[in-house]
Amino acid sequence: MSTYTPPLKDMQFVLRELAGIEHVAQLPGYEDAAPDLVEAILEEAGKFASGVLAPLNWSGDQEGARFHDKAVTTPAGFKEAFAQFAEAGWIGLSGDVEYGGQGLPKLVSAAVQEMWTASNMSFSLCPLLTLGATEALLLCGSAQQKTTYLPKLIAGKWTGTMNITEPQAGSDLAAIRTRAEPQGDGRYKIFGQKIFITYGEHDLADNIVHLVLARTSGAPEGVKGLSLFVVPKFMVNADGSLGARNDVCCVSIEHKLGIHASPTCVMAFGDDGGAVGELVGKENDGLKYMFIMMNAARFGVGIEGVALGECAYQLALAYAKDRVQGRDIAGSSDGVAIVHHPDVRRMLMLMKAQIEAMRALAYTVAAANDTAARHPDAAERKRSQAYVDLMIPVVKGWLTETGNELTHLGVQVHGGMGFVEETGAAQYLRDARIITIYEGTTGIQANDLIGRKIAREGGATVKAVIALMQRTEAELAQQAGPEFAAIKFALGKGITAVSEAVEYIVANYGNDIRTVSVGAVPFLKLMGIVSGGWQMARAALAAQAKISGGSHGDPFYPAKITTARFYADHLLATAPGLAQIVTHGGAGAMALDVSIL
Amino acid sequence: MSTYTPPLKDMQFVLRELAGIEHVAQLPGYEDAAPDLVEAILEEAGKFASGVLAPLNWSGDQEGARFHDKAVTTPAGFKEAFAQFAEAGWIGLSGDVEYGGQGLPKLVSAAVQEMWTASNMSFSLCPLLTLGATEALLLCGSAQQKTTYLPKLIAGKWTGTMNITEPQAGSDLAAIRTRAEPQGDGRYKIFGQKIFITYGEHDLADNIVHLVLARTSGAPEGVKGLSLFVVPKFMVNADGSLGARNDVCCVSIEHKLGIHASPTCVMAFGDDGGAVGELVGKENDGLKYMFIMMNAARFGVGIEGVALGECAYQLALAYAKDRVQGRDIAGSSDGVAIVHHPDVRRMLMLMKAQIEAMRALAYTVAAANDTAARHPDAAERKRSQAYVDLMIPVVKGWLTETGNELTHLGVQVHGGMGFVEETGAAQYLRDARIITIYEGTTGIQANDLIGRKIAREGGATVKAVIALMQRTEAELAQQAGPEFAAIKFALGKGITAVSEAVEYIVANYGNDIRTVSVGAVPFLKLMGIVSGGWQMARAALAAQAKISGGSHGDPFYPAKITTARFYADHLLATAPGLAQIVTHGGAGAMALDVSIL
Repeated sequence: MSTYTPPLKDMQFVLRELAGIEHVAQLPGYEDAAPDLVEAILEEAGKFASGVLAPLNWSGDQEGARFHDKAVTTPAGFKEAFAQFAEAGWIGLSGDVEYGGQGLPKLVSAAVQEMWTASNMSFSLCPLLTLGATEALLLCGSAQQKTTYLPKLIAGKWTGTMNITEPQAGSDLAAIRTRAEPQGDGRYKIFGQKIFITYGEHDLADNIVHLVLARTSGAPEGVKGLSLFVVPKFMVNADGSLGARNDVCCVSIEHKLGIHASPTCVMAFGDDGGAVGELVGKENDGLKYMFIMMNAARFGVGIEGVALGECAYQLALAYAKDRVQGRDIAGSSDGVAIVHHPDVRRMLMLMKAQIEAMRALAYTVAAANDTAARHPDAAERKRSQAYVDLMIPVVKGWLTETGNELTHLGVQVHGGMGFVEETGAAQYLRDARIITIYEGTTGIQANDLIGRKIAREGGATVKAVIALMQRTEAELAQQAGPEFAAIKFALGKGITAVSEAVEYIVANYGNDIRTVSVGAVPFLKLMGIVSGGWQMARAALAAQAKISGGSHGDPFYPAKITTARFYADHLLATAPGLAQIVTHGGAGAMALDVSIL
Repeated sequence: MSTYTPPLKDMQFVLRELAGIEHVAQLPGYEDAAPDLVEAILEEAGKFASGVLAPLNWSGDQEGARFHDKAVTTPAGFKEAFAQFAEAGWIGLSGDVEYGGQGLPKLVSAAVQEMWTASNMSFSLCPLLTLGATEALLLCGSAQQKTTYLPKLIAGKWTGTMNITEPQAGSDLAAIRTRAEPQGDGRYKIFGQKIFITYGEHDLADNIVHLVLARTSGAPEGVKGLSLFVVPKFMVNADGSLGARNDVCCVSIEHKLGIHASPTCVMAFGDDGGAVGELVGKENDGLKYMFIMMNAARFGVGIEGVALGECAYQLALAYAKDRVQGRDIAGSSDGVAIVHHPDVRRMLMLMKAQIEAMRALAYTVAAANDTAARHPDAAERKRSQAYVDLMIPVVKGWLTETGNELTHLGVQVHGGMGFVEETGAAQYLRDARIITIYEGTTGIQANDLIGRKIAREGGATVKAVIALMQRTEAELAQQAGPEFAAIKFALGKGITAVSEAVEYIVANYGNDIRTVSVGAVPFLKLMGIVSGGWQMARAALAAQAKISGGSHGDPFYPAKITTARFYADHLLATAPGLAQIVTHGGAGAMALDVSIL
């Protein structure tokens, strides 16, 4: 059965050398995030992940969440683990200190979330969704709503959900039909059905706080008529105690490919007279609030990509070291562990290199998020926010697609054993398959990237990022040796590829959006691969500085340089081809009539 | 629930225009394969696949094969379907006429197998394995073995298996330990355990004919000491009736990611005194016979790649036409079916284009196989056999990897519904995951390709294939219009990429096998993509000839040209990057010590 060892050394390296934890710790309000304290926090999180959550991952998958008579039972051990998790304060790690949170920066919570997902993705979704609800209420809720809900959510006494999707409204939020009727006392009655509601019902906590997108009577058509409501499972009395059962219930759960232990619920609102809800923020501003939550959620799903890649890698590596099969291709006739076979090594290096690149990219975006939130200089906040806005679809889209590829490779390394469920590799593949879909498919991310984030501003932010990449390229040129030569060569090609693709998008998006949009996902992959390669190049430079500064023979640093070089040779090498697809792939794609497909 | 419509029009196009069914039908012994008769056969097979097998695919997955007390029960309907299948003569389609087969060429059986797999992969594995056993006995068995087993196997009264893998011997056949002790009467007693035995036990037929790789007492170490044995589940009396139960039984079946209806058995030989077996062919020649079977089996698994891609495509296309979500990106504000969204269209075109390329490549290799077997001219037989030998690892490796990518895309097109098992898209993904593994992983195929098939002969055959590709490129230059210009441009780049990679492999394989082998799988993908692009270019030329010759406005032909152009823009565009990985990716991959991975 699988075990999980938190990759603390690489996490620390990224936090300190690439994401600038020291700078983040100097931002107002983040003074507690001193590097040494953060190190201690990550160690504790790692113990919880490997000691409590990982042992429930496989059993949770096999047992699954069960539904009976409107109630959901989570697998054995989940309830106790959630209580421990809440008790240890993990839910409130990045929560507002005013409501009992620890107020740590996103950079720290990102690293911690990676461990929760890697050790037990199904479990991790409950706190992740709770965090989303917490952020929405903090940003948009009334003072009373905050006082009522936030302390309980942050303490893990209650949990939160996001109720967006309906059968006819998936990616298309304009099609939402759930309606909210004002009752004259400031409250509303909610009627409608929501689907795909993660942890919409469960037995982990006393109350569930549903955040629900709905349409008030007479609201405008489309997305401009959506409002956000808070609808608790149990009404909350003035003293904070639980009151009557609200008219919202789970009517079924989905039979899914993966994340079996995470209940995916069909929720019925108002079947018995109307679910009581309160408006959050202003009427018809629901979409805006949802996008605030969505950006955090999309980042969180991106982290799932690196997390699933990591646990798939650890399992595959352990098997490859243990499994003796065949002889060394260029050596003796004795049997060797398959880790010595070139193609197995290539697969493991593909996993290792892309995991490290994904982690570096995600954590640096998290740090930029912290800067955007707290930096005293408004211009710096704005610059950081523009970078975050640009990179969120890349983090969500590229990390989740890559996470899927890595779980596929994880099975492949196992050979026939990978297809046997008991091995555990197949579970990662199954669990990963949702991450390129929920919180906006890769296609949705890519359209957001080329449209709102690039074309609309004439590519200003992405060109600024390209300039930063070029600075890194110039630094590479100062280094000696074949590794840095290979990294510089490939990064240079990659930067050129991104630049050409950006020029094409900016020049043509306005007059031929359909053709340009065919290249949206190929561009997102290109942007992800080159951004990841940029971070790996920065990592190689940082590692070289450590070596030059006297790293006492720690093999971590030369390995980082070698891994960056592998990434350059095997991933950045695909960048020119992706740019070619972006700039030349549009015409043929839309040419066929639907009837002949 | 999924349905399957046999893609008869494209199959016929490939058979007639690309694979040369007319020429195959002129080969001695294949006179029955006249194009019109073949068309009728494919129509009948299509009816059986869509009418009998497809309806059992989902229910078979959900019910799964069940094991109890050494017996395996297949899902409801499988037994009746197999009886109908056998009765209709489908098992013996390509079987020897002397033993009741219909003696049709591989080109026809390949197309028919595609339909069996696409409609019900789990079911299809029983006749596929039976065919493998039949071929082994036909090629290597004694006259008496042929008379005893072949008519029953071809008629579907009995079925066959291949018993190769053992717990310590997966890809590494040298590690096989199952032993065979001669009994002095020409028979042997077999002792050992085999795993991953497809349909090793079931309730579809009266007897099961196991072909078993084992080691006789005193045989040489390694693969040179392997012999092939036939071990029936029930002994066969002289009159052909069934005798005593042999000492071979199923002790468990695997709990797998996919192909749930296909029992994957652990088989125990000789737990009760020894399983009685007969030597097939000569002692210690087992590996040679196994490779004969293996080439056929590998081709058959390659066909599974295109088959699973096809059924995933059909399901995704139907959903994309039906699902209304969002508005046209450049059009009116009315909701549109998602098939009109550029990224959905891109995904569907990726599926369609690669399916057509895979089918064309596989069928042309099947035709070459028929030529190699039956052409009156020895030089032509040799040339064809060399082409087949070169392309078998490409067909197996590239089609199965691509098939996995397409089932992944099939889920993606469905969005959240794709993750729900009832939709059926996830089953294709699960079922497909084994095909890059069994009958030799992609890594094994790629090593075979660059080593035995290219480096060992200095690249002679692959260079001859490159010359054929260049002839097609020259023909493209004769055509007008942007489609042919795009196809010619991309194919030219692809050919250059293959040539450069081949030169590198041939020049360096001998002195640096480890470094070169890192590029084996990237080269296999490159070879597959360019070979597929070559076939799509041939298809476009054939379609243009049809149009020029008066195709009466049939939209199939212009669509074929557009699809070939899409393939060029989106797949061939990746060829230079793959060549770069092959020629430059070796150094960094093997550099790390295992302890730092």
